[in-house]
Amino acid sequence: MARAATLLTAGPAPCSEDALAALASLVGDDLVACNRVIVQHMQSQVELIPRLAAHLVAAGGKRLRPLLTLACARLCGYQGGTRHVHLAACVEFIHTATLLHDDVVDGSQLRRGLASANAVFGNEASVLVGDFLFSRAFQLITADGSLHVLRILSDAAATIAEGEVLQLVTQNDLATTEARYLEVIQGKTAALFAAACQVGAVVADRPADEEQALADYGTAVGMAFQLVDDALDYAANQRLLGKTVGDDFREGKITLPVLAAYHAGSEADRSFWKRTIEASEQTEADLEHALALMERTGAIETALRRAASYAEQAKAALAIFAASPIRQRLMEVADYTVSRTR
Amino acid sequence: MARAATLLTAGPAPCSEDALAALASLVGDDLVACNRVIVQHMQSQVELIPRLAAHLVAAGGKRLRPLLTLACARLCGYQGGTRHVHLAACVEFIHTATLLHDDVVDGSQLRRGLASANAVFGNEASVLVGDFLFSRAFQLITADGSLHVLRILSDAAATIAEGEVLQLVTQNDLATTEARYLEVIQGKTAALFAAACQVGAVVADRPADEEQALADYGTAVGMAFQLVDDALDYAANQRLLGKTVGDDFREGKITLPVLAAYHAGSEADRSFWKRTIEASEQTEADLEHALALMERTGAIETALRRAASYAEQAKAALAIFAASPIRQRLMEVADYTVSRTR
Repeated sequence: MARAATLLTAGPAPCSEDALAALASLVGDDLVACNRVIVQHMQSQVELIPRLAAHLVAAGGKRLRPLLTLACARLCGYQGGTRHVHLAACVEFIHTATLLHDDVVDGSQLRRGLASANAVFGNEASVLVGDFLFSRAFQLITADGSLHVLRILSDAAATIAEGEVLQLVTQNDLATTEARYLEVIQGKTAALFAAACQVGAVVADRPADEEQALADYGTAVGMAFQLVDDALDYAANQRLLGKTVGDDFREGKITLPVLAAYHAGSEADRSFWKRTIEASEQTEADLEHALALMERTGAIETALRRAASYAEQAKAALAIFAASPIRQRLMEVADYTVSRTR
Repeated sequence: MARAATLLTAGPAPCSEDALAALASLVGDDLVACNRVIVQHMQSQVELIPRLAAHLVAAGGKRLRPLLTLACARLCGYQGGTRHVHLAACVEFIHTATLLHDDVVDGSQLRRGLASANAVFGNEASVLVGDFLFSRAFQLITADGSLHVLRILSDAAATIAEGEVLQLVTQNDLATTEARYLEVIQGKTAALFAAACQVGAVVADRPADEEQALADYGTAVGMAFQLVDDALDYAANQRLLGKTVGDDFREGKITLPVLAAYHAGSEADRSFWKRTIEASEQTEADLEHALALMERTGAIETALRRAASYAEQAKAALAIFAASPIRQRLMEVADYTVSRTR
């Protein structure tokens, strides 16, 4: 893993988290307001709901999606209102709901380095609180009052669910094409990134081409983000990642590193992948061997190169906006999704 | 169980299902159109989604909630459009999504006499397809274009989730008050009945008092429906019910029959309930004994009397509408919820 690990932990950017911090500092007040809206709206008379939701909030997500909504609204010159703040919270609620359901579906025990909500509160509560947060998201859209926003976010929600089901269907199936894998991550991840960015243009009442440009930016950033996520699941420093390396391997999840190693591998390699991923027959030493095969076939680099190409697309999509500090930061965030180590 | 069983299987009404059939025949074309919208909108390129959704549709639900939307719209004089048809489908999607998630949460193996979706397709697929149907519901609301409808249905969805979480919290807890139990069923069941009826007035553009009257009617019908559901879980003829009698008992679910038998019981009875419901220590013979205690304390009748009182409230709520065949049928549906045997 030496080569790939260096790629991921040293990284081309000096310290990739700086890109997020720099963007966050440009919309600092908005982000504080957004966090306040999130905490307010996760309240309920049913005490378990805020308790479970707070567990996830306390686990310290990056708030990447709401940050994008806030930044895109500012990029589009939105002023004088708080629609972007409320819609950023709405985006985070949809994201959190899918995280809760994902962890149930995957049987995950860890999330961001802490015990997952399902591990602490049980699958039942995670499913139901996910439903609650999802409903809250649509209550926030109601309060916003824009049917255009409702269309963007309800379409995104349906696309996310389709992507998640498609991922379930492709599990353990090495005949999955790369195109299908890209379809999965477009649905499960990129759709919400796209919506998060697009609504920034909507609240600022910008023309359709700017809306589309931000949707394209969000899609590309989301694709890069998920490609790197899937690479990190094999190549990350476990302590930094805050989740167990090899989760995807153990679940037989079909991601680009697996597909790349499988297709570039020898006959013996392919037998190994068939046994471990398709037949789910794994021994202790198999993850180590999988990592060695990925190292030999350059599978992690393949995924990272693909991610870098999406990051370039993302930056190109911003070309129609005039140069500004916030546009610059959004471009750096695209690079961050590739260079991040967790 | 002789007395309660007679109450439920012979029933006061000659054949209670007739009330549903009579209402359905008054809105027959609308119901056919609604079924078509349901089938259309459960389609997806991800083939597992319509397959799993069709499993539930094929299991033949009563379509009670969409039927109420269609009938209430007609009661309010709605003419010349298909908004009620699309919103009825939307209501059924929200209901179906909650059924899918409920069955996962409860670990149910049967639904309407057939293997439940989670038993056939797995919990993972049920969670995710539930999310998909929920998203589809909000896409249907988008197409309808009314923010008022969006408010009603997103509020209902949040209330449903709160009710479900509250039910989870009260599980195995005999200290649960009757008021809290009523809060649970108001949330998990009555809220959607209320919304289903209320949107009938909204599409017909009726004044606020008629909207409120239909919401009140729906709430009361939903309360009666769930009270009887909970009674049937102990008292029904298993073959007719199409689900396993005693499910709630085995899960330690706190329902009115249990609370009534617990509070009206002897010291020894209360020890029995504490062991079986609170400590979840159950043997083969315990369900039979629970049924005998309910018989002795009149617990089923308590629940049915309460349901009958809600049915009266439901009928009273319709008083502000002029007498008509459809109003008459809606009143009969209120009685049906009490006299039904499955």
